[in-house]
Amino acid sequence: MSNLHILGICGSLRAKSHNRTLLNYAAAKLPDGVTLSIADLSDVPFFNSDIVTKPAAVEQLLAEFAKADALWFACPEYNYSIAPALKNALDWASREPNNHLLAGKAAAMMGAGGGMGTSRAQYHLRQVGVYLDLHFVNKPEVFVNAFAPTSFDADGLLVDTRIQQSIEAQCLALVQLAMQLKK
Amino acid sequence: MSNLHILGICGSLRAKSHNRTLLNYAAAKLPDGVTLSIADLSDVPFFNSDIVTKPAAVEQLLAEFAKADALWFACPEYNYSIAPALKNALDWASREPNNHLLAGKAAAMMGAGGGMGTSRAQYHLRQVGVYLDLHFVNKPEVFVNAFAPTSFDADGLLVDTRIQQSIEAQCLALVQLAMQLKK
Amino acid sequence: MSNLHILGICGSLRAKSHNRTLLNYAAAKLPDGVTLSIADLSDVPFFNSDIVTKPAAVEQLLAEFAKADALWFACPEYNYSIAPALKNALDWASREPNNHLLAGKAAAMMGAGGGMGTSRAQYHLRQVGVYLDLHFVNKPEVFVNAFAPTSFDADGLLVDTRIQQSIEAQCLALVQLAMQLKK
Amino acid sequence: MSNLHILGICGSLRAKSHNRTLLNYAAAKLPDGVTLSIADLSDVPFFNSDIVTKPAAVEQLLAEFAKADALWFACPEYNYSIAPALKNALDWASREPNNHLLAGKAAAMMGAGGGMGTSRAQYHLRQVGVYLDLHFVNKPEVFVNAFAPTSFDADGLLVDTRIQQSIEAQCLALVQLAMQLKK
Repeated sequence: MSNLHILGICGSLRAKSHNRTLLNYAAAKLPDGVTLSIADLSDVPFFNSDIVTKPAAVEQLLAEFAKADALWFACPEYNYSIAPALKNALDWASREPNNHLLAGKAAAMMGAGGGMGTSRAQYHLRQVGVYLDLHFVNKPEVFVNAFAPTSFDADGLLVDTRIQQSIEAQCLALVQLAMQLKK
Repeated sequence: MSNLHILGICGSLRAKSHNRTLLNYAAAKLPDGVTLSIADLSDVPFFNSDIVTKPAAVEQLLAEFAKADALWFACPEYNYSIAPALKNALDWASREPNNHLLAGKAAAMMGAGGGMGTSRAQYHLRQVGVYLDLHFVNKPEVFVNAFAPTSFDADGLLVDTRIQQSIEAQCLALVQLAMQLKK
Repeated sequence: MSNLHILGICGSLRAKSHNRTLLNYAAAKLPDGVTLSIADLSDVPFFNSDIVTKPAAVEQLLAEFAKADALWFACPEYNYSIAPALKNALDWASREPNNHLLAGKAAAMMGAGGGMGTSRAQYHLRQVGVYLDLHFVNKPEVFVNAFAPTSFDADGLLVDTRIQQSIEAQCLALVQLAMQLKK
Repeated sequence: MSNLHILGICGSLRAKSHNRTLLNYAAAKLPDGVTLSIADLSDVPFFNSDIVTKPAAVEQLLAEFAKADALWFACPEYNYSIAPALKNALDWASREPNNHLLAGKAAAMMGAGGGMGTSRAQYHLRQVGVYLDLHFVNKPEVFVNAFAPTSFDADGLLVDTRIQQSIEAQCLALVQLAMQLKK
């Protein structure tokens, strides 16, 4: 397999975010030749076109998008839609010339939340991808019920083997799609 | 008509936001007995449940929600979905006990953007309203093409009479719905 | 309570449809003064504006819409969106002059399907309601997992008491909203 | 370019459908090696799993899906969502074993309607594609205002050169994506 670098973006800013845990699990199970880094959104301000000098945290974020061959979102659901911090990261990235940080890249998403596993937010994120020209993996979708006692243990570790497998399968699907789109 | 107080929420943080202009126009054309204030989101941080002490800007925002009988959103569209600052204001408000700042309130939305007039973002916002138990006005919808030279003049004032009329009609529809839901 | 007539519309044409079972359950538990009839869509053809003489099944359907104070949808999910038979019933009704069969009416929806309980289809139906000027009940939402052994018994009867209660609560919410909108 | 066969699916059953006109225009401008046939949905009944023997029109439709390397939808908008005849064609196709008629195929969509050019319906169709494992072209999107006097002439021919070009560009994008996904 060729080398491929994935940028992980977690929409929750919480220190013990279950969504970040999904990315952490993925990072420990990458196929050979695949690397993953997780963006730090904690100091990225709201996008505002009045801001003429990009803050350092934004510059850092944009540099990470530039290095990424593919994107992997850990997508919480807040009030039936996307977490603002996640959307805001994409809004900043989308303003670069010719959308070159995003256009044509492969992407995937997973999420931990209530009983629907953040599905409502995920479909909104897919619509965002149309404008940004991201190509999302269709299957498997990863919907995690964060409140099911079988999903995470007392230390917050992901322990559900079915979910673990679906994350690993989604990673393979993301890598395959990224390879196809590069051709 | 009974007294009714509307809280206006603008998703753009720009000083010369066309979306705020729509709310400003509305504020100058209110029916008798109706008042409107516009929330200041400029210092409201991203919601994060790790934040235990609410910042002053959040306290101020929540107080404005508490006083409002109805909500009126000026909804930009960023990358085919909702502007993070607007969504974030609702995310903060939704965390108060029993959703009492929002539940059952009437609401309306309008937006200025590209050729679709922020319609894609507005439908996402409507889905958010299902969870928050907001009752949105159906008609008229207000979709403003910010780039049409007939919409705003060189000073940024709203000059399209058809749009002006639809904003005034939406205000009446919002007031009527708020009155019906109070009964 | 004033008299109120509800039209039930089931998107599945199957004889043993679980979705129709939800409406049947509702019909047996109506509050005093409330009546419900279920539309027969089995002979309603696809809407096509080339059809100049309405078929008898369409005339019958439109007459049922005219009599209804409120609408209640049993909304299956086919491939992450609305069942064509349900959507088609609304498409026919929407073509009557001034949308008078639908405009301003209260409505509610429930659905039985896979693990998400037809939620994806239900959010699409809510967007349809914006154009049709239907006012949907926000809560409770009713999402039924048709494959959970606790939902329906071997004879296809709805036996989950939690779901039964949510259907009854949705009925009360629909009646209340219809009353408010009449004022 | 390798040979590639596209199946066109028009959601309107009208004889003089503007949406079918878009597919007819496309059919006359195909790149070398690319063929397009348009499905006949006029006798395809509503999907109903009680139907055990597939009608001839359904068998014919499924055979056309089987031959197609890619799909191209002419997507009208009825009441802010998908036309039932289009959705129904996909619902039939989706029931074949292992979703083999659809899974992994490239697809594109365009539509003629009101001022939003059927965009609301198109985003619903994209969500359907997630379940069906269709990979939709992101850009260019084709939104045609059927009521603009510059779009179609008195004989119903597509005469807007900007739209013509976007249809041809979408065809190239569809062919490219289909080729990439085959690898």
